Parts: sequence; structure tokens; C-alpha cells
Amino acid sequence: MPSEFELIAKYFTRPTPGAALGVGDDAALLRPTPGMELAVSTDMLVADRHFYADTNPYRLGHKALAVNLSDLAAMGAQPRWATLALALPQADEAWLTGFSRGLFDLARRHNVDLVGGDTTRGPLTINLTILGEVESGCALRRDGAQGGDDLWVSGELGAAALGLQHLTGMMILDDRDATACLERLETPTPRVALGRALVGVAHACIDLSDGLLADLGHILERSRLGAEVMLASLPVHAALGRCLASEASAALARHCLLAGGDDYELCFSASPNAAKRVEQIGKNLGLRLTRIGRLHTGKGLTLRDSQGQPIEIDARGYDHFA
Amino acid sequence: MPSEFELIAKYFTRPTPGAALGVGDDAALLRPTPGMELAVSTDMLVADRHFYADTNPYRLGHKALAVNLSDLAAMGAQPRWATLALALPQADEAWLTGFSRGLFDLARRHNVDLVGGDTTRGPLTINLTILGEVESGCALRRDGAQGGDDLWVSGELGAAALGLQHLTGMMILDDRDATACLERLETPTPRVALGRALVGVAHACIDLSDGLLADLGHILERSRLGAEVMLASLPVHAALGRCLASEASAALARHCLLAGGDDYELCFSASPNAAKRVEQIGKNLGLRLTRIGRLHTGKGLTLRDSQGQPIEIDARGYDHFA
Repeated sequence: MPSEFELIAKYFTRPTPGAALGVGDDAALLRPTPGMELAVSTDMLVADRHFYADTNPYRLGHKALAVNLSDLAAMGAQPRWATLALALPQADEAWLTGFSRGLFDLARRHNVDLVGGDTTRGPLTINLTILGEVESGCALRRDGAQGGDDLWVSGELGAAALGLQHLTGMMILDDRDATACLERLETPTPRVALGRALVGVAHACIDLSDGLLADLGHILERSRLGAEVMLASLPVHAALGRCLASEASAALARHCLLAGGDDYELCFSASPNAAKRVEQIGKNLGLRLTRIGRLHTGKGLTLRDSQGQPIEIDARGYDHFA
Repeated sequence: MPSEFELIAKYFTRPTPGAALGVGDDAALLRPTPGMELAVSTDMLVADRHFYADTNPYRLGHKALAVNLSDLAAMGAQPRWATLALALPQADEAWLTGFSRGLFDLARRHNVDLVGGDTTRGPLTINLTILGEVESGCALRRDGAQGGDDLWVSGELGAAALGLQHLTGMMILDDRDATACLERLETPTPRVALGRALVGVAHACIDLSDGLLADLGHILERSRLGAEVMLASLPVHAALGRCLASEASAALARHCLLAGGDDYELCFSASPNAAKRVEQIGKNLGLRLTRIGRLHTGKGLTLRDSQGQPIEIDARGYDHFA
């Protein structure tokens, strides 16, 4: 087995133009931009809990970075640097080649330098820590929402969760839908440019990793507000739309839509006066942005059906439908 | 099992006076000090590889942070913030209580804020990422050593490795020595104040995590220098000294001294003109600092016995003695 040093040198050492000192010393050295705050987030992915151990390694490298980029996007921060800690059962060079390519391909697109890391033998575990920068005092926080704000989400929801249901055999998709949904599950697109564009526009923001209702619940809790969300207004991925239309699969499909997780879209609030600016941002980015409801100064999250009737939601954010 | 949110709230959320925003959003927000560079390091500890799963959790919490603090010490950086990612087989509240106390007790002593993290179910794995600050351009790097520099180490070497040999049954220590050595192994003292004091004094520095010869080898490689080290000059922990004095245990004891790892002392180089300043730093800190050899513009590491004869070292840094 190659040594830790050889693995790091071969697979994880690339130029780090954005760092004063990259991989290879006791610590990396970075030069923060004056006037910016540093945004820091970390995510640990454990085999057979967050992903199947036989997941395509290129896609896994992409996803490990993507979920961290998504956290920075939700703060409106510009990603700059990352560290990677990796435990591997063995030094499988084909796996390392794929994983590092997936990671660096996405890193390059966002000008993120991998500045440090740690490689060890152990049960397959991936831990990325990401550092980014956002104008001081301007980060998009969960606690900044205001009563009367419109609620928005980016992209389309539910496809990643549907892909997972397909993998576990709970839902049978045709080849085209399966491919589309697995792509959403395994190679999510972090909405970094959207996050940056929303600085100064949105009042609060979160990324959808645990499902719309649970994640929106965090904004409500931290901002001490309530919300009304219209089920019919939610932007539904086409594959999920087909499942919703079939009586046999509708209940599970709605679960994917509202509580499925892994969407990595942004959910944000903004003043109704900013609606035109938000729409323009969506046009500029070629990204669907959908108004799904409104915040109010009361408590709780009310989900309404197309007749305006409330749909029952339990305390965990979502559990079943009436 | 309590939810991830409950665990984080109960065990890992403390005030973060040094951060603009701590635990609880998509990312933490930090305000770097103008004129300072940011030093970043990450270490992953895997159960039954880096520690025994039944290690006292208080000590494990201490060590997880200590090894990261030691990396910053080796750069001369002041520790400021940390993130923690933790995979746990189950939410053992006694374990979490001990672990978090060990972590926060050490964090408090160094004014380090735990600003973010991730908790998940999985094989016991601990990943800390540490952030600190050092005056721009002044970090102690591995590549800064100069030919003619004195080589120094802090503290005393070999006790941690001896403790590990005791745990594995390879070496039988009496109760007093076993206690002392296990304390060194399980609750190392990161030399943060020494690292800070060496800024502007030392030319190069590394922390001793993999053993003196291997770690010194990194300074030599990065600085493109050679070194002469006098075996008799090495500061030996008293317990190790007793093992060195016995013929039966001398070989293993020398291995602990030179290649054992887990010392978390600093090894640094400085101009002979700075020797008095280095000695004064040691006095001020109440910390033994020992000159162990000298760097030269040639290649390779030569270890000499008390007669001045070279002791054979293999390419891995250390393997056996002639």
C-alpha cells in the first residue's frame, strides 16, 4: 500500500494559487480578503449511511465538495479553500483516481483550492471543511427573515429523493427518469452563483439538504416566524411529477417532494418589493426561481392544498398527509 | 437516540465570543484579524487505528483538539477557531459528556471557539479542523531552515510511544511509569506558547507526531539540507531512560525515542546566534529546550552515538540500529 504521503502527493496535491502555502506543511496559510468575513462549514459523509460504498467514485468526489459548497451558497459566500480528511479501507488507486477527479473538477469550476488534508486507513469516511468569504455583515443567515417576506426556492425539488427510492427499490422508475434522478442525487449542483447574487437581496437563506419542510423549519425557528406554503406552487421535477400523477406512487412522491432531502437547492426569503429583482437574478443565471409561499409573524408552518385547505404536518416537519 | 440537532445543542454548543456567528447556521462566520494570515489544519482520528475505542472519552476529547493545536504551534500560529465532525456508533451520553468536556476544557485554555460541526452515526471517527492566525509572512514553515542552524526539541521524547508499547503488552512498565506514559500518550500538551514565542526566532519548525527522525526528515526534505543529530543529547523522558538502561528493553526503547511518534513536542531550527534567545524562551515558559544537533548544506540525516560513530538509519527515517 502506498504511504499516506505518496497518496496525498499523487491524488490530492494540485497548485493552490489562492493560498500563501498549500498542502505539505503542518498547516496551510491563507490570506483573507480585507473587509470580508470568513464562512466555515464542515460535512462528514459516512459509507452506507450518506452514500453506498459502491457509489461511482467520481460522483462521490463531486458530491463531497458539492454539499459543502451548498452550505456556503446558503450564506451568500464565495468559496475559496477546502481541506479534506479521508479514511479508506484500502488504497484503491482506481477509486482514488475517480474520487480526486470528481472533487477537483468541481473545485476548479469554483476556484476552490484544496489546501490541506489527512489520509488514513479506516472505514470509508469523507470529511470536507470549506472556507469562503462574504462581505462583512452581509451573510445570508437563517435568522434574518422578516414577517411578510416572500418564500422562494431555486430549481426543482424531489428528484434526488426519488433517485434514492429507486436505488432502494421502493419506487420503480423507467431508465430515463432513473438516470435523471440519480444524477440529481449523486452530482448535485451547488447554487453558489445564486447565493452570491442574493447578498443584499434575500433576508434569510438555507440550503435544502434534509427536505423542504425540515429546512424551512430552521428559518422559521431562528427567525421566530410562521409560514404559509402552497403545495401546488412547489417546483416539481418532471420525473417526480409523473410519480405524483399516479395514485400508486403519489404518497411516496409527495414525501420525496417535501421531506426527501438531498435537493441542495436554496430556500430563501425576500421582501415582496424585491420580487422583480429576484426574478431578474433567476433570468440572469438561467435558473428557475419559484415563489412558494409567505412568512408571517405568527408561529408554525402551514402547508395548503390547491383548495386552500391545510395539510397536516407533524412536529418533525413532515410525516404524513391527512 | 437523540437527534443530531439535540446532540449538537446539548454537547457541542457553547458561547463563541471570538466568532461573528457560531454553531447553528449553514456556516459559521469569523472575522480574521487584519495583517494576519490564517493557518488551517485538519486531523482525522479513527477508532482502533489512532486510538482504542475504549479510551477514556475525556482524554480523547483532549487529544483530538491537542493534535490540531500542535499543528498550529508548529506554524507559530495563535489558535482561534475549530470545527468538529464526529461519527458515532450510538449516542452514548456518558461518552459524549466526557468527550465534550475534554475538548472544551482544552479549548478554553487556548481561547478556541468551536464554531461548527457535523454529527452522524457511523464507525467512531473524529475529525477536527483548526484555524489560527499568524503574522503575515512570519509563519514557521518546514522549508525555512538554513545550513548551520542549531536543531532543537522541546520537552522530553519517547514517553507516549512507550505508553503505547505498554498498552499493547510489548513493554511492561511499573504503575508509576505506566501512568506517566499513558498521560503523555492520551493527553499531550500542545506547545502553542512555544510556537508563538519562536516566531521571528526559529527558521523552521515541525511538531513531532510521527517520531523525531521521520518528522525531522520533512524539514530536511523541504529545506534541502542535511543534519547531524547526537543520540546522547536527546532529551529522554525518565520512564524511557529506565528502559534504555536495561539491556532487554533498550532496543524497543530507542525505537520509541527516535521513531515512536505521538510526542507532540516541537522540533525547530534556529541560528546559533539565537541560542541565548531560545534558552530564554525555554526559561520563560518553564519548558525544557534541548539542542540536539545541527543542520548542514549536505544531504541526509546522520545520527551519531556517544563515540561519534554514525548509527545506521534506513530510508524510512529509522528502522534498526547497527
